[in-house]
Amino acid sequence: MSFTAYWNGEWIPSEEIRIDPLDRGFMVADATFEATRTFNGRIYHLGDHIRRLYRSLDYIRLDPGLTEEEMAALTEEAVERNLDKLDAVGDLHIHHFVTRGKGRRAWSADGAQVGIRVSGLDFAGYYTAYEGLKAIITRTQSYHAEALDPKIKHYSRMNFNLAELEANEFDPGALPILRDRDGYITEGSSYNVFIVTDGAVHTSTTRTVLEGVSRKVVLNLTSQLDIETRIEDIQPYDVLNADECFFTSTSWCMVPVTTVDKQPVGDGKIGPVTKQLLAAWSENVALDIVDQAVRYGTRATA
Amino acid sequence: MSFTAYWNGEWIPSEEIRIDPLDRGFMVADATFEATRTFNGRIYHLGDHIRRLYRSLDYIRLDPGLTEEEMAALTEEAVERNLDKLDAVGDLHIHHFVTRGKGRRAWSADGAQVGIRVSGLDFAGYYTAYEGLKAIITRTQSYHAEALDPKIKHYSRMNFNLAELEANEFDPGALPILRDRDGYITEGSSYNVFIVTDGAVHTSTTRTVLEGVSRKVVLNLTSQLDIETRIEDIQPYDVLNADECFFTSTSWCMVPVTTVDKQPVGDGKIGPVTKQLLAAWSENVALDIVDQAVRYGTRATA
Repeated sequence: MSFTAYWNGEWIPSEEIRIDPLDRGFMVADATFEATRTFNGRIYHLGDHIRRLYRSLDYIRLDPGLTEEEMAALTEEAVERNLDKLDAVGDLHIHHFVTRGKGRRAWSADGAQVGIRVSGLDFAGYYTAYEGLKAIITRTQSYHAEALDPKIKHYSRMNFNLAELEANEFDPGALPILRDRDGYITEGSSYNVFIVTDGAVHTSTTRTVLEGVSRKVVLNLTSQLDIETRIEDIQPYDVLNADECFFTSTSWCMVPVTTVDKQPVGDGKIGPVTKQLLAAWSENVALDIVDQAVRYGTRATA
Repeated sequence: MSFTAYWNGEWIPSEEIRIDPLDRGFMVADATFEATRTFNGRIYHLGDHIRRLYRSLDYIRLDPGLTEEEMAALTEEAVERNLDKLDAVGDLHIHHFVTRGKGRRAWSADGAQVGIRVSGLDFAGYYTAYEGLKAIITRTQSYHAEALDPKIKHYSRMNFNLAELEANEFDPGALPILRDRDGYITEGSSYNVFIVTDGAVHTSTTRTVLEGVSRKVVLNLTSQLDIETRIEDIQPYDVLNADECFFTSTSWCMVPVTTVDKQPVGDGKIGPVTKQLLAAWSENVALDIVDQAVRYGTRATA
């Protein structure tokens, strides 16, 4: 299936995008990005994603040569140009990226390269996650904000790569939860971490984590559902004693975590608050999130 | 001028290497690299570079599918295939890179992509550096080793990009010197930092810096020349009170730094120890390093 992509002012088949090995986006990860998805073919919270993209761009002083409004309009067009694949793939994944181009130093680079790639959501890669994920709290830490603020959505993710390898070595298939330099829980390699203790939902402050759009959706849902919610520093002790744990990310929305450090979370089953939030989210988008993932995931792997 | 490159088992024109935007080396900087140069067309300290490449690869658990001996032989061949451009460009720059390929998680990637690119040394981009560089000690810090050990030669360099922008904003054209989280001097965005105080040469331990091959060359030279040398923690205070300062890197070998934080280093002129070391290095490689850079640099910009 060939998707159409936006690439520096042109619409081309996605597979024709090739990155120059001299581009700073490759050689020194001098790039920022966003990941967005659709529900029933409609882009979800596009404004939040575009706003965050431009916060990242501002922080790294990179001018994409497009206004936020133009970027949003191009994103809508990118989805529209690929809507004919919707039935086949379920829903769409949109990946924005902006690199600084070529050049010896960041301030002498030759200009932004802008791409918007659309593809089918990778249900086959994650639909089983809804049965409950395994997690490991890793030795590998998050960057501290004085080196690189984790709120920037950047490509410099080698510590996340190492954390994934470390988690998988301790418990095959497990995903990492990183800590900051003070020992507090931060995030994983593309997801925010939530725990539920005595019916209350807890998640970390944004001091050392990405301000996840799905994190915000969950916070809106707990508010609507009158679930007690605390945004605060969380220690490994709190996670290992939690009744429930779940991760949030754009593609899978939220998935239960049923073991941490090889120990069951609560009774090791998917908890009631996790189920309640997933149901509320599904209602909100008029689509059963888990059912869609399983249907398209099993179809793709069949 | 078209150089020949090694790319996943084939020899192709360098400009035909294109990185897939889905490669983890691009999307999450899941890659390691090396930069090597020739003197008079002969590769300099190839063993040290290949050894360091494999130390990086081991640390990030990435199998390039080639032994160290095979990588070294391919590097020799890459240089040989481009030797006909030597007169035109002066000397060659060799860039090795290995990415983890495509895949949702580091442990499920589909296999290493290996490239060896050869080009002319970018004398035009840096020959004026020998007149004395400007530097700024930045607010942006180095990664701490518990997040990502700076001894790994990786592509996740957004903090260096930010440090370059910060230095340039305070003093246009200045290059950054980063500190670690304890406030000690570490390195710049591809170079090690040395200072000279009362005739003694000082440089940081490798706790939070790359183990530069050129750093090692300088340490060998100070030993041969009986110059007192200390490898120790260095504070901004020490740099701002130093008599001389210089940076080392593969391409420029070593270049004097004559202002730090807009203040002259010593008397603001290139110091005697810096000159002595550059002369010794030039003798060692049977080539006047500064003269070559100026000759080819001015020719290229003419």
